[in-house]
Amino acid sequence: MDARVRTGLLYDFYGPLLTERQRRFVELYFGEDLSLGEIAAEFRVSRQAVHDILHRSEMALEAFEAKLGLLKAYQRREALRGRLLELLERLKAEGLTPAQEETVKEITALVEAMGREGD
Amino acid sequence: MDARVRTGLLYDFYGPLLTERQRRFVELYFGEDLSLGEIAAEFRVSRQAVHDILHRSEMALEAFEAKLGLLKAYQRREALRGRLLELLERLKAEGLTPAQEETVKEITALVEAMGREGD
Repeated sequence: MDARVRTGLLYDFYGPLLTERQRRFVELYFGEDLSLGEIAAEFRVSRQAVHDILHRSEMALEAFEAKLGLLKAYQRREALRGRLLELLERLKAEGLTPAQEETVKEITALVEAMGREGD
Repeated sequence: MDARVRTGLLYDFYGPLLTERQRRFVELYFGEDLSLGEIAAEFRVSRQAVHDILHRSEMALEAFEAKLGLLKAYQRREALRGRLLELLERLKAEGLTPAQEETVKEITALVEAMGREGD
């Protein structure tokens, strides 16, 4: 996984545990794609200071992941969910009664809801 | 939910974020059901000190839950999972081809694995 994408995902899980300043810098750099220089100018701090805060934020996010493993658990759940959706498709391929079709539709909707849950 | 049970569940999710001492006291009090006095005697501290550390631990666990909501998300996932298992039972009740039965069995196993995942 791309390091930027990984940081973005870790931020989705652990962002609320960062400090207000860390959150702001991470959102601007990773979310809105501002450069170090642009963030430095906006907050009237040095480019180095922005770099340090972002670096510490990434270390903090990785430390939370090492302890709680939410990203890893999410990825495992997503893999299971993908497999479930495949199997539900296979079930429909062989012909079902109308009542069974309704049930499979409901199951599929729940499996999809589980994915939004994990976000 | 019983406060003791809730603290136990929150500890399952956020235990790694507590300090070493907090973890030990929470495990002895909530996990092994030792009394404040017993923990105090074991660690040669006052009963009040044990009480304070346990209280701070509970506050910390609730603060993590307020920020990350892992227990809430888990409960929602468990409710969805329970509903999924019901629907899978309903599907089997109406008669399926042997191949479909195999598929439903595989789906059920995955849904059950998702539960262990969330633990």
